[in-house]
Amino acid sequence: MAEIASLDALAGLMARQRAVREFTNDPVDDGLIERLLEAATRAPSAKNEQVLRFVVVKRPETKQQVAAIVGETPGPGRTPWDEVPVLVFVCAANPFGETATGAAAQAGSVYPGIQNLLLAARSAGLGTVLTTSRAKIKEAELRALLNLPQGTDIYAIIPMGWPVAKIGKNRRRPVAEVAYRERFGDAW
Amino acid sequence: MAEIASLDALAGLMARQRAVREFTNDPVDDGLIERLLEAATRAPSAKNEQVLRFVVVKRPETKQQVAAIVGETPGPGRTPWDEVPVLVFVCAANPFGETATGAAAQAGSVYPGIQNLLLAARSAGLGTVLTTSRAKIKEAELRALLNLPQGTDIYAIIPMGWPVAKIGKNRRRPVAEVAYRERFGDAW
Repeated sequence: MAEIASLDALAGLMARQRAVREFTNDPVDDGLIERLLEAATRAPSAKNEQVLRFVVVKRPETKQQVAAIVGETPGPGRTPWDEVPVLVFVCAANPFGETATGAAAQAGSVYPGIQNLLLAARSAGLGTVLTTSRAKIKEAELRALLNLPQGTDIYAIIPMGWPVAKIGKNRRRPVAEVAYRERFGDAW
Repeated sequence: MAEIASLDALAGLMARQRAVREFTNDPVDDGLIERLLEAATRAPSAKNEQVLRFVVVKRPETKQQVAAIVGETPGPGRTPWDEVPVLVFVCAANPFGETATGAAAQAGSVYPGIQNLLLAARSAGLGTVLTTSRAKIKEAELRALLNLPQGTDIYAIIPMGWPVAKIGKNRRRPVAEVAYRERFGDAW
């Protein structure tokens, strides 16, 4: 019987999930990456369709091609994408269709798994940042580079590596400001 | 320094997240619900907009009104919504707009928090099931019932309570079937 995280330990972890954009040059072991991907597969999906697919990019040549396509602006405290140890491309086909219900089913099948991946990375001490911008996910060029089949799209790019700085607690609005009882506006 | 879940403990928890639709009559303590909501607030959001709002429904009259609006088909192994101890309505305004980038930013700001809520509930032994169907989230009627302000929409309804049955492990495709190296289709 495997150990299961207590609410205390889980809350402690979630309070320390922060976007990390600066990474050391230390490599990330494939066995560890596989454990993070396994965590991602465990998330729920509508009709248990398990839509998520992952392309893990570690080769310098591929990262350079990604960086050239994305053409990001370099900045302080940001490791350029061609120097980030790992880029995880989170992809999926959409079996639910383009209706409002289909779009919600798809979103609810993609992002919980992404969150599992980010939480698992954090628990291992790895830094990540969730990138969903369509401006960065230049669909046509990156699809060609990654050889994505028709119907499979990129939902997120997750740079990952060992953080340069300590990952502290995040800051969030207190529950009293975002939760209500029975009706919106009625104080929790 | 709070305890932080290890990858082992987190993986053990994630492997045991399953949809639960049958609940005992036992009430769920408000203090516990607040801890789950706090876990949800800790998730990342685009530009740290923290878009999530929660309406927690526990009163029998409100639940009966919800059940009447949703008009779900009763079935074996499913507690009717008017008898579920807690219905959590996950709501949000969308500050990112209706472009493809805006929609991705919004989805990436809503569902990670939902997943935090579901994982936190599971770690406490609570059962939940994620409902995103627009057919169930009958927007106009439920908006009126919950007194939602204009621009704030319902993204999910989460029935929650103590499970009747033991929550076992979920079954998922192995990583080798969903992960690739460098290019889609190249074996992990």
